[in-house]
Amino acid sequence: MAGVPKLFAAQLWLADICSPMVPIRKIINDPVYGFITIDHPLVMQVVAHPYYQRLRRIHQMALAHLVYPGAVHTRLHHSLGAYHLMRQALDELRRKGFSITDEEAVAAQLAILLHDVGHGPFSHALEGVLVQQVHHETMGLAIMHRLNRELNGALDMAIAIFTNNYPKRFLHQLISGQLDVDRMDYLTRDSFFTAVSEGVIGYDRIIKMLTVHNGDLMVEEKAIYSIEKFLVARRLMYWQVYLHKTVLGAEMMLVKMVERARLLHKANPACLPLTSIDFLLDAGSQLTEEELLDRFVQLDDADVVAATKAWRTSSDNVLSLLANNLLDRRLYKVKMQAEPFDNTLVKDRQAEIAGQMGISVADAASLAFTGHATNTTYKTDDERISILFKDGAVRDISEVDNALIQKSLAATVGKHYFCWLRTE
Amino acid sequence: MAGVPKLFAAQLWLADICSPMVPIRKIINDPVYGFITIDHPLVMQVVAHPYYQRLRRIHQMALAHLVYPGAVHTRLHHSLGAYHLMRQALDELRRKGFSITDEEAVAAQLAILLHDVGHGPFSHALEGVLVQQVHHETMGLAIMHRLNRELNGALDMAIAIFTNNYPKRFLHQLISGQLDVDRMDYLTRDSFFTAVSEGVIGYDRIIKMLTVHNGDLMVEEKAIYSIEKFLVARRLMYWQVYLHKTVLGAEMMLVKMVERARLLHKANPACLPLTSIDFLLDAGSQLTEEELLDRFVQLDDADVVAATKAWRTSSDNVLSLLANNLLDRRLYKVKMQAEPFDNTLVKDRQAEIAGQMGISVADAASLAFTGHATNTTYKTDDERISILFKDGAVRDISEVDNALIQKSLAATVGKHYFCWLRTE
Amino acid sequence: MAGVPKLFAAQLWLADICSPMVPIRKIINDPVYGFITIDHPLVMQVVAHPYYQRLRRIHQMALAHLVYPGAVHTRLHHSLGAYHLMRQALDELRRKGFSITDEEAVAAQLAILLHDVGHGPFSHALEGVLVQQVHHETMGLAIMHRLNRELNGALDMAIAIFTNNYPKRFLHQLISGQLDVDRMDYLTRDSFFTAVSEGVIGYDRIIKMLTVHNGDLMVEEKAIYSIEKFLVARRLMYWQVYLHKTVLGAEMMLVKMVERARLLHKANPACLPLTSIDFLLDAGSQLTEEELLDRFVQLDDADVVAATKAWRTSSDNVLSLLANNLLDRRLYKVKMQAEPFDNTLVKDRQAEIAGQMGISVADAASLAFTGHATNTTYKTDDERISILFKDGAVRDISEVDNALIQKSLAATVGKHYFCWLRTE
Amino acid sequence: MAGVPKLFAAQLWLADICSPMVPIRKIINDPVYGFITIDHPLVMQVVAHPYYQRLRRIHQMALAHLVYPGAVHTRLHHSLGAYHLMRQALDELRRKGFSITDEEAVAAQLAILLHDVGHGPFSHALEGVLVQQVHHETMGLAIMHRLNRELNGALDMAIAIFTNNYPKRFLHQLISGQLDVDRMDYLTRDSFFTAVSEGVIGYDRIIKMLTVHNGDLMVEEKAIYSIEKFLVARRLMYWQVYLHKTVLGAEMMLVKMVERARLLHKANPACLPLTSIDFLLDAGSQLTEEELLDRFVQLDDADVVAATKAWRTSSDNVLSLLANNLLDRRLYKVKMQAEPFDNTLVKDRQAEIAGQMGISVADAASLAFTGHATNTTYKTDDERISILFKDGAVRDISEVDNALIQKSLAATVGKHYFCWLRTE
Repeated sequence: MAGVPKLFAAQLWLADICSPMVPIRKIINDPVYGFITIDHPLVMQVVAHPYYQRLRRIHQMALAHLVYPGAVHTRLHHSLGAYHLMRQALDELRRKGFSITDEEAVAAQLAILLHDVGHGPFSHALEGVLVQQVHHETMGLAIMHRLNRELNGALDMAIAIFTNNYPKRFLHQLISGQLDVDRMDYLTRDSFFTAVSEGVIGYDRIIKMLTVHNGDLMVEEKAIYSIEKFLVARRLMYWQVYLHKTVLGAEMMLVKMVERARLLHKANPACLPLTSIDFLLDAGSQLTEEELLDRFVQLDDADVVAATKAWRTSSDNVLSLLANNLLDRRLYKVKMQAEPFDNTLVKDRQAEIAGQMGISVADAASLAFTGHATNTTYKTDDERISILFKDGAVRDISEVDNALIQKSLAATVGKHYFCWLRTE
Repeated sequence: MAGVPKLFAAQLWLADICSPMVPIRKIINDPVYGFITIDHPLVMQVVAHPYYQRLRRIHQMALAHLVYPGAVHTRLHHSLGAYHLMRQALDELRRKGFSITDEEAVAAQLAILLHDVGHGPFSHALEGVLVQQVHHETMGLAIMHRLNRELNGALDMAIAIFTNNYPKRFLHQLISGQLDVDRMDYLTRDSFFTAVSEGVIGYDRIIKMLTVHNGDLMVEEKAIYSIEKFLVARRLMYWQVYLHKTVLGAEMMLVKMVERARLLHKANPACLPLTSIDFLLDAGSQLTEEELLDRFVQLDDADVVAATKAWRTSSDNVLSLLANNLLDRRLYKVKMQAEPFDNTLVKDRQAEIAGQMGISVADAASLAFTGHATNTTYKTDDERISILFKDGAVRDISEVDNALIQKSLAATVGKHYFCWLRTE
Repeated sequence: MAGVPKLFAAQLWLADICSPMVPIRKIINDPVYGFITIDHPLVMQVVAHPYYQRLRRIHQMALAHLVYPGAVHTRLHHSLGAYHLMRQALDELRRKGFSITDEEAVAAQLAILLHDVGHGPFSHALEGVLVQQVHHETMGLAIMHRLNRELNGALDMAIAIFTNNYPKRFLHQLISGQLDVDRMDYLTRDSFFTAVSEGVIGYDRIIKMLTVHNGDLMVEEKAIYSIEKFLVARRLMYWQVYLHKTVLGAEMMLVKMVERARLLHKANPACLPLTSIDFLLDAGSQLTEEELLDRFVQLDDADVVAATKAWRTSSDNVLSLLANNLLDRRLYKVKMQAEPFDNTLVKDRQAEIAGQMGISVADAASLAFTGHATNTTYKTDDERISILFKDGAVRDISEVDNALIQKSLAATVGKHYFCWLRTE
Repeated sequence: MAGVPKLFAAQLWLADICSPMVPIRKIINDPVYGFITIDHPLVMQVVAHPYYQRLRRIHQMALAHLVYPGAVHTRLHHSLGAYHLMRQALDELRRKGFSITDEEAVAAQLAILLHDVGHGPFSHALEGVLVQQVHHETMGLAIMHRLNRELNGALDMAIAIFTNNYPKRFLHQLISGQLDVDRMDYLTRDSFFTAVSEGVIGYDRIIKMLTVHNGDLMVEEKAIYSIEKFLVARRLMYWQVYLHKTVLGAEMMLVKMVERARLLHKANPACLPLTSIDFLLDAGSQLTEEELLDRFVQLDDADVVAATKAWRTSSDNVLSLLANNLLDRRLYKVKMQAEPFDNTLVKDRQAEIAGQMGISVADAASLAFTGHATNTTYKTDDERISILFKDGAVRDISEVDNALIQKSLAATVGKHYFCWLRTE
């Protein structure tokens, strides 16, 4: 990499915008909230950093745009939105008399800005599939630490809050908890860009009802209806959008394609065209952690799209079929149901496809398969939203005895699916 | 390309959705209009075709998202939107008693759906720069003809309308004219996703006031205020968004980078990493028209992003600098003014940069330069919007003597700009 | 009444707009749906009629604007909105192949336009209190019949549909049923004007999923999430808006004021200032049904407001206190709970107020009282929304075994309240 | 008036909400801005006062709802909205370093809250017609002074700002000037409720660009496009909404009716039914200023509607005709043009109507007449919006030499109209 001119320019530019002489304020247009304001030099520096700018090139909703064409917003846009809500939440808590220093406020803002910085290409859709060694949160933390060194420790407090090692634990709960600004932004933003109006939540109302009690973030009693609405909207978004069967089918096609490429690559790297993600296909890669990080911070959706395009012409029929079908939007047929699918159904379908395409039944496993989709961010056991009553009592929303919050909200939200290629 | 399984699957799938037995209707969620409906098998077939699906991977607004992070919507989304407005316009004209057959209506819908199918990567930003041989409209027409052959002539009438060879010329004017549904959609959609609320136009009101007189599309008298608003909104969008100085700077950086790569490639292709757009860098390419088309329909923004990433590490300092700066959003500094810039200013700046970077002054021309930005779709001479008065008179909006529509609306809308790299 | 010129002008004007020569179309701006179109002379005639225009002067949400200042929209606006949704629903059902003649379509539109024409001043808030003799639906039917005579039977079919005496009973179900366009409009419109964004429903999506099976209106299987959202939004609107404790307190103050005025009027009409609603205070009024109707169609909110203003200076301390407090927005204090309130609590409060104000304990009953608020339009027993499954089965939403639709949705939705005047 | 209990309760309640023990915050839902926050006891006290609550019963847009059925919002809603924008503007100016004390901020908020408190029934439509003695601004000031006495001088600074007697004159300019928050709110709110989307302005963007230079309020250079848009939107709202010919016709009918009633009342009060506005019909009323004020603060739209209803049955044919036509929405026919109407046209029409109705030609002057509509709040001579350039220069928007702001913006905006009753 032509490192010298790059770093040179970067340093000078940051120096430029961070001059203590110039009062800083940048206003960013956002179709969801109107305006997002940045008014602290450190926040500006982090936003301007290549590690953060990379998030411009990662879709927030992976392949959901194949069903909802408006859903092409980015991780950068989402994390800016969550940052905006964090500012509102901090203002609100301060207004209610809870002590938050300016340093803490900036640290909490930085922590939420960076909360997704470890996401790889197509984020959740390829989580654990493309980058197998590390989860995005681990990767994110490694990137934060590296950035922190570059900034001479300016992120110390942000990292402490992010990792829940800061005494005022409500700051962490604003970033990661049942009512965090991450969820509030993604539900709001995703329902906006997909145009699924039923997913709209009253984020502004919820924020106005946030409070802290015994150090924990909770909501005031009168927020009950808004919270119920939030839970219902979230569930609706899961079934109607995140686990929409066509979206699921598209994302599974992406997964099966990468797995197929990895299989071929392991057998014989030379049989595949060169792509920028080849180093990830070799699980036994000898990269050190730092080397992996060096490369990771260059990756984005375009690398996977470019690889897919290269694989269009692979000599492996299965890989080329998957690549072409994905690019041209010929997706799996998908069925979803509460009970597991009968295994013979799958076997029969695989055999049929194998016969039609002249491939082995083992290879046909990429073209007909079953699985179980669960909503990983929606966990029964941590579905704890505490309500602070006027009389000082604290109760979990599920205990609130007014028949408004249903037991069933905590029900498991998984479904079995069966995907197969249409060949007739 | 592994053509066999691909075409095989495609044909079967199309057969599947186009079965005359099944009544067809697909509803697509759109944050701008709510729902977009497809209810004709031929429209469905075209939308499902890889040529059309490719538009998913081309940003409608090129690099405007570097300033307006929400502006990541695609050409596919825009052309679906324009198709939706076409349906409304056709309904409206029919309701007013103008004869439009079902076949004509479908043809007009197909024509608008395909009006942008010839756009290449980053569309207008790289128009004439990346694909030098042909303009996007020529390319689009070539693609339509190819698709028409594949569909056994089903697009004949759509092509006649698109090329203004159809007797009812108001159908063509709905696709390409001062009040076409293309403009109505892009202004509406671009102002929506950039969150520049002042760009909002009353598209629904304008559509309700469309009429036909002596075969030409025009608006009724009472539309005057809405038309004025439309013209003002468009001009505002040009200056505030399309020619925003930072957007201009980003898109010029993209241009300069491609030009630099072409220069290096011509000198010695081997000195550059392989990319999927190399065949475009060689202007004297021996590709036949058909071969060029074969490759063109595979191209999209991801190819250019992937090439940019490959060029990050080019041994050519200028190319790597441009690639890195573009990806990491370290953009040119830009000044805009009505008068041309003094040439010595530019020369001095180039010399300075050449000195700092240790490159030749000629090479520094990519890093400091001037130019003239004009709004190419906003031409004085065709700014003709005809108004049909109640008394049967037809007048151009610029003649309407009520001081509401300004002469100056037709003023030239160009500005001179000066871009240079920040190095200190 | 100066009947002659009035009828004279009306007849001429109607003749004017209904001339068969002029194609009729009127477009009405609506902040909720954009545009509402009227394109049939009979619909135009009904909308232009004084019986319908009266609805301009009746608030849709009675006194809810005391809490939600935007909620000042009118019954006229709501019924126009419901009419708009009816048109969409009819279009959708026709598109799906269900036979609806043009005459039936117009009749269904007229029936929904007129569905609220029998509402009196402050509609539900004074239902049964101000006009004691007749319910608003009976009154509405009487007005429809009178209008029908005036229009020489043009409303015959509309009335048959309204009263469920028309064979295609799904037309009636669109007007009055669990998924009727009345509910869809009022939830949408009321959440819009109150700015309670959580009350938003996906009316357009639900309409697209309407179907008819064995003559009954139902929704397709895939509508399940939208229906759940609809039910949750409705419940939320009840508790957060319609039965908001301050709104309830305001509307109870209106009720208690009218009851107090009636008591005084019965005792001695001369002790009260003359108002235009005096004839309603005398329950034993000797008006014939036709005479009552003659007067009723002149009544609106302004009559009650004017009476309230006249009562500000009543010599009766209780009446003047209620009138002044209502106009100046000094509302009751209100508590709501699941269990009935202890009667001694109320008695004590009445005694206290009686002492402070120097009035009898009996009179203090208007100033401290309890009651039970139920949501009258939300009845457990008719909560039947039928879902038509792809396999042809029909099931009620409450039977759908996917844990998404809760049993508790059918729970009683009543609360006990305690209202009292703040005097310290 | 049963004064004792009323004042008693009011005082106690205000004491209650203004207790220094309880931190005060009230959040009001607004469909336009989301939430409006009140967090100062004095603001709360003013909002709760009957003088302010009266504004609930005055339509912001008089009779515009006869054309735009959503436009039923109130003066109270508008002034709360303007108060909300004032808070944003003050925050913005403080953020830019301009000194505004807490006391000044509250005073500016109170001044804008009360800026319309002197409006009478149907505000501008009956300005100078119903209450002839005093203009609404004089009346407003009198009410503020009275309220100030009640609050022991707490409004001193607010009144100084309102009357431009406070040294920091930019505070006054925020209330009354070309870019005041009054206009920003009414344009935004009126376009919202009428659903005239072209009237939308970028109020949030303009507020972010406000600045102060040499003590005067102005906008930064980059606001030019937003200001142009603001001017165009305002003009559009005037022609499309405020001076819409049907709205004009309706409001002129209201004026002619009141003038007719005054004529009859002066001739012989006994010939008219008693109404609550009779005291205003007698111009030579012997009321003292204080007595007039006592009565004025009780008046609202309902008084005029109730009077209109009483006049329906007047023995005077002209008055009853006007009252009935207004209530039943049979409005004048209206023509508008740039040139004055030929007087013989009017005379002929009056004669014709006189003949048809059997009334004198003089009486027919209420039924056919001409006039000149000007936009009183849009004055050529004070159309001064100052722009502060980056180089420190200040120029008026009309001087900005970039062809974007048109001379014609300052053109007179009047039109001649001819209204007449349809009798054939």
